[in-house]
Amino acid sequence: MRKVCVVITARPSYSRIKSALYAMKDHPNLDLQIVVTSSALLEKYGEAVKVMERDGFAISDKIFSVIEGENRISAVKTTAVGMMELASVFYRTKPDVVVTIADRYETIATAIAASYMNIPLVHIQGGEVTGNIDEKVRHAITKLADIHLVSNEHARERVIKMGEDPEKVIVTGCPSIDLVSEMLCDYRLDFDPIIKYGGSGLTTFGAKNYYIVIQHPVTTEDNQSMHQITETLYAMKQMGKPTYWIWPNVDAGSDGTSKGIRVFREREKPENVWFFKNIPSNDFLKMLYNCNAIIGNSSVAIRECSYMGVPAVNIGTRQHGRDRSDNVIDVNYSRDEIAGALQSFQRKGRPKKSLLYGDGKAGEKIADIIANVELSYQKTLFY
Amino acid sequence: MRKVCVVITARPSYSRIKSALYAMKDHPNLDLQIVVTSSALLEKYGEAVKVMERDGFAISDKIFSVIEGENRISAVKTTAVGMMELASVFYRTKPDVVVTIADRYETIATAIAASYMNIPLVHIQGGEVTGNIDEKVRHAITKLADIHLVSNEHARERVIKMGEDPEKVIVTGCPSIDLVSEMLCDYRLDFDPIIKYGGSGLTTFGAKNYYIVIQHPVTTEDNQSMHQITETLYAMKQMGKPTYWIWPNVDAGSDGTSKGIRVFREREKPENVWFFKNIPSNDFLKMLYNCNAIIGNSSVAIRECSYMGVPAVNIGTRQHGRDRSDNVIDVNYSRDEIAGALQSFQRKGRPKKSLLYGDGKAGEKIADIIANVELSYQKTLFY
Amino acid sequence: MRKVCVVITARPSYSRIKSALYAMKDHPNLDLQIVVTSSALLEKYGEAVKVMERDGFAISDKIFSVIEGENRISAVKTTAVGMMELASVFYRTKPDVVVTIADRYETIATAIAASYMNIPLVHIQGGEVTGNIDEKVRHAITKLADIHLVSNEHARERVIKMGEDPEKVIVTGCPSIDLVSEMLCDYRLDFDPIIKYGGSGLTTFGAKNYYIVIQHPVTTEDNQSMHQITETLYAMKQMGKPTYWIWPNVDAGSDGTSKGIRVFREREKPENVWFFKNIPSNDFLKMLYNCNAIIGNSSVAIRECSYMGVPAVNIGTRQHGRDRSDNVIDVNYSRDEIAGALQSFQRKGRPKKSLLYGDGKAGEKIADIIANVELSYQKTLFY
Amino acid sequence: MRKVCVVITARPSYSRIKSALYAMKDHPNLDLQIVVTSSALLEKYGEAVKVMERDGFAISDKIFSVIEGENRISAVKTTAVGMMELASVFYRTKPDVVVTIADRYETIATAIAASYMNIPLVHIQGGEVTGNIDEKVRHAITKLADIHLVSNEHARERVIKMGEDPEKVIVTGCPSIDLVSEMLCDYRLDFDPIIKYGGSGLTTFGAKNYYIVIQHPVTTEDNQSMHQITETLYAMKQMGKPTYWIWPNVDAGSDGTSKGIRVFREREKPENVWFFKNIPSNDFLKMLYNCNAIIGNSSVAIRECSYMGVPAVNIGTRQHGRDRSDNVIDVNYSRDEIAGALQSFQRKGRPKKSLLYGDGKAGEKIADIIANVELSYQKTLFY
Repeated sequence: MRKVCVVITARPSYSRIKSALYAMKDHPNLDLQIVVTSSALLEKYGEAVKVMERDGFAISDKIFSVIEGENRISAVKTTAVGMMELASVFYRTKPDVVVTIADRYETIATAIAASYMNIPLVHIQGGEVTGNIDEKVRHAITKLADIHLVSNEHARERVIKMGEDPEKVIVTGCPSIDLVSEMLCDYRLDFDPIIKYGGSGLTTFGAKNYYIVIQHPVTTEDNQSMHQITETLYAMKQMGKPTYWIWPNVDAGSDGTSKGIRVFREREKPENVWFFKNIPSNDFLKMLYNCNAIIGNSSVAIRECSYMGVPAVNIGTRQHGRDRSDNVIDVNYSRDEIAGALQSFQRKGRPKKSLLYGDGKAGEKIADIIANVELSYQKTLFY
Repeated sequence: MRKVCVVITARPSYSRIKSALYAMKDHPNLDLQIVVTSSALLEKYGEAVKVMERDGFAISDKIFSVIEGENRISAVKTTAVGMMELASVFYRTKPDVVVTIADRYETIATAIAASYMNIPLVHIQGGEVTGNIDEKVRHAITKLADIHLVSNEHARERVIKMGEDPEKVIVTGCPSIDLVSEMLCDYRLDFDPIIKYGGSGLTTFGAKNYYIVIQHPVTTEDNQSMHQITETLYAMKQMGKPTYWIWPNVDAGSDGTSKGIRVFREREKPENVWFFKNIPSNDFLKMLYNCNAIIGNSSVAIRECSYMGVPAVNIGTRQHGRDRSDNVIDVNYSRDEIAGALQSFQRKGRPKKSLLYGDGKAGEKIADIIANVELSYQKTLFY
Repeated sequence: MRKVCVVITARPSYSRIKSALYAMKDHPNLDLQIVVTSSALLEKYGEAVKVMERDGFAISDKIFSVIEGENRISAVKTTAVGMMELASVFYRTKPDVVVTIADRYETIATAIAASYMNIPLVHIQGGEVTGNIDEKVRHAITKLADIHLVSNEHARERVIKMGEDPEKVIVTGCPSIDLVSEMLCDYRLDFDPIIKYGGSGLTTFGAKNYYIVIQHPVTTEDNQSMHQITETLYAMKQMGKPTYWIWPNVDAGSDGTSKGIRVFREREKPENVWFFKNIPSNDFLKMLYNCNAIIGNSSVAIRECSYMGVPAVNIGTRQHGRDRSDNVIDVNYSRDEIAGALQSFQRKGRPKKSLLYGDGKAGEKIADIIANVELSYQKTLFY
Repeated sequence: MRKVCVVITARPSYSRIKSALYAMKDHPNLDLQIVVTSSALLEKYGEAVKVMERDGFAISDKIFSVIEGENRISAVKTTAVGMMELASVFYRTKPDVVVTIADRYETIATAIAASYMNIPLVHIQGGEVTGNIDEKVRHAITKLADIHLVSNEHARERVIKMGEDPEKVIVTGCPSIDLVSEMLCDYRLDFDPIIKYGGSGLTTFGAKNYYIVIQHPVTTEDNQSMHQITETLYAMKQMGKPTYWIWPNVDAGSDGTSKGIRVFREREKPENVWFFKNIPSNDFLKMLYNCNAIIGNSSVAIRECSYMGVPAVNIGTRQHGRDRSDNVIDVNYSRDEIAGALQSFQRKGRPKKSLLYGDGKAGEKIADIIANVELSYQKTLFY
């Protein structure tokens, strides 16, 4: 019986591990422990912890760590507070293996605590390429991790090139695709998002012929985040079609993003844009599957939407370098380029579905590997 | 005028950067700020900070961060405390570039604070290969750093293989060799170490025909540290020659090391072994240059001693994979193997000197690069 | 020349020390150092730090410490982060004396850091009595402090009763009254608050015949904060007169308060209530001086308003036990009691002015005492 | 069933609560949770946690918090780290009541965490008077605590004078006296301390006609700690009788103390002094009961020794103001005064036993009160 500890730090990370958590919970040879920290505990970022509890997971520890400021110093201090307490949690619960997910800045706390305490570390979703501080964080975690469970062959090759032992780098696909696969059993949009989820806007509208926007601030460009969001806001106003706008995650720079949205709303009084704070995963996937296109810089546009064949307009550098299939058009922070890309999709029709990020069975594969892989916490460059 | 902030965390790190610090202090285009933290502030680890002040450096901030316990949890928490306060220091002093040295566990705090705060990060001595937690730390820092100043071509190739831009990876040699080069202007052992530096032992002896031991605990094997040290102690007792034993650095596991030494001294009452807490760099290099051989697992045996052509018996895994020249014989934790290696050196005579770790001019090269290199804090995998 | 370090943690604390800061800055025998931390750094709580900089004060250190959550655990952790870094600040700057203000939870960090580091501690505004966690904090700080500068004789007697040396307990009055005294040189309300300060509400209105509300959550009752705020909201709606509502400070429980306001606004769509986030001190005092009455549980109603003779309806336990003059009527969390008290003031007319909290010259007295008092950090119970 | 959480921070605190812990563990209406932190986890201070586990107590959380340096800054930072993590522990385990013991600097972390989180706080041993930083800490904790369980009527009166409700201040006696009472059932010294407990010294000797020394550094005088200890060392050398010296606790200033002892041993080579790191409580009490006198500034000399009637020479200010019975002679840091006091005891013979610190049944009283007292976390000054 292996004791596996998974640390969840944010709402999107939960989506990216959920199917694997279910598989680990049910696995006969795994004893699952879940620790929740950082923005996953905070109401204003969707309080993932409540969703998880409703989903039937017991949380062993909740570590409040987010230092207010939403600027660059708070990213460091938030990481430090999380790290200090994760050490105590691991010391108390003595897991055989720790799992960290993806590349948010605060996840390096998990990687350091586990590796410094000689606990074998599994990293989910290494080897990908994007364009902000996540890039540094992700590869640094790769160098701290012992087992790498990656989304596809491209990612695997990159991890191996960085000097990891090929036997320790395994393609499982991304568990977030499992949720899509499950949702596709019944993909009808059988609810009105505004009625079901509230949110705020000037005029309500129905879920027909609509767009979805998710745009995060880019940490390495955070003094431009207000300008960046403003271009997208004008592009959507110009389109004139119903637009569901999903509020971004905690990150250095979200103050600029929030301010951009606030100023735009006061000045332009947009009637076709509605703002949501958070939509539960399955309903969100349905909304995605049935939308005209997704706009912004969320990885969901490149990952989940590739599997569903949903058109995606990807703005700016945040997803720079991420492997993509035919559903994505890349543009700059420019209302005109955004509008142009949306028109191009209108002409070309729906893209083909792709297995680039998995086949929908990543969760079970991950649980099996964690239950059975040989665990070690020592390694050197493998060349 | 560039404001450069160098963070020093331990006595050996200071030696590895000292000549570069002098060069930066004197550089017309650099404004040098020095932060001291971790064991470099503590008396029992040689209080590097006092040495630095005597050497004429002004310290802008002193951050007490070492959490007692000398075990694995304290490594994590020490890193966290350092990280939290480095963030505030960088916020207050706003350096243009931050410099971190080598690979001790707590140095990742510097790397994270700088990179998360969008301050370009210079890493000294990346790309090397060793055999414990330093290994993970060093390469993780490489993935967080923007400029890599490395010791030799082997190191450079490894850093580039990990996906760094070749233009950002520059061979400077290791500044610790600069100190050796300087010492060699007058290498006579013109003092008696015991008289000059005190320390403890049962019987004093003179500095003729002597050996030097430095053996650190290995963090990934720390429950074996008592056994490991004991083998070396017996080997030296068996040799019967004067032996200067330098007390190891703070690290998870030093409790086992200390205990091993204590138990041995009480049981065996060794008359040919004398223990020092700390010897200033220049005198230590003289002692090294004039010794029969160095025994243990210190990097000094492989780096500085290669340049001086001093025989080195390297024990165990700690320096596993580090580039070495002809002055090194590797052995296991075994009193017999240690003795065998020492006898082999007696037969073969003094090894040749090597430039593997530098030509003695690293400090100036480093200062010039930091003053002139194009600074950026954004990067992606370079392949 | 004495080096005095004043730590500011919140917007209201700044108001309570501002005149003394000016006096210290100008004092020939004082070298003033100001450290800003906690909510005083955060935009959403009025970013006191910017106000201070505009007022001409240089800030030596800014310590981001607020852990998100606005619940009880975050109060502890925020205090801990502040404490850790204040220690480093005091270590670096070596003040001769440290000043802490009043009784907010995070201020105990200043008191502990100074007293544990053997730095004489001056506490401003000890000996008062209120009704929540501040009560415990205030008196605990008294027991850590060496010099007590209090508002009036009642406070002085209480501090002495707690075992402090009467020679170390000096009545200066509260510096916040100095600001009132200065404002009274020109008390005309020469601006329209809504036009000048924005804020939010359904219908704008002019500053005639208006009320002011400030109601903070009570930390020891924080699961009732939504109910408590709701009663006041209905009372003001019922009054039907223009009402300026000032958003409360960061504190455990403000989530309930915010929610209460949000729900009320959505349900009742009140046209006579306008919400402000923050109004600069002097304009706020003018608004107070010219209002019909102040409602809520702010200390301003009891302190500044006693000096100005402004009617105050004080709700609930938060100010329980605070010395008050004739301008205050106390009520429970009840819309009817609030309305009754307001009507009673309408009948009785404006209360008399009182010197209970000072004569308007506290700042200078404080600076002089800090410059000249005998400093010591040792004490025992004085009975 | 009440959930009571007791936080232990040091070896001596454990002795002062042990009998109460047994009583709480066995109490039908109490669910006991024990948290260990600070020096109680560290080998070099006697690793109380191991003793507790051997005594049959389960430890729910171990929080490593001691920041190295043993100076004044580390006292602050150690407190901060403990506070941060105690908050998370209380959040996870949700105790109904928290117990904190006595007055060591780090215990204020327990008091703040509990009181800020609205958990009723019981303080054991408030109201006493001593002479260093403990003095400030103890009374500050009184002002944060809700229930005060004190040693005697003098202490009770002092706590009440500080404004606490007399109904909440209860004399139980000190639980440390319970251990003495138990020991007295068989007080023969049936072992040789040096043989049983090791330690270090130049010459061994038997336990006949011997003295005991425990001398802690005084935090408010820590730059004099080397001088202070030296006077005592010479006094004992001069006496020439067998002397057992117990190593002091972690505290700001112990570096000076350690150095003083080290220098003295090297210079004077005292043959009649033997140094112990730690002696388990019961054997230590036997050694005390059978000694000629205890010398130093430990509270044990004033408390436990008053109950046993053991002569005590109390040096300096550390115990200044503590209630004492006839067994104590107070002296300054002077070898002559120490010697004089010891001779005076030789003439006068053994002092009478006293019940000043309890009757040996404090543990049960404490457990009963905690199980049954009305719990609240709100209070105001009671006058």
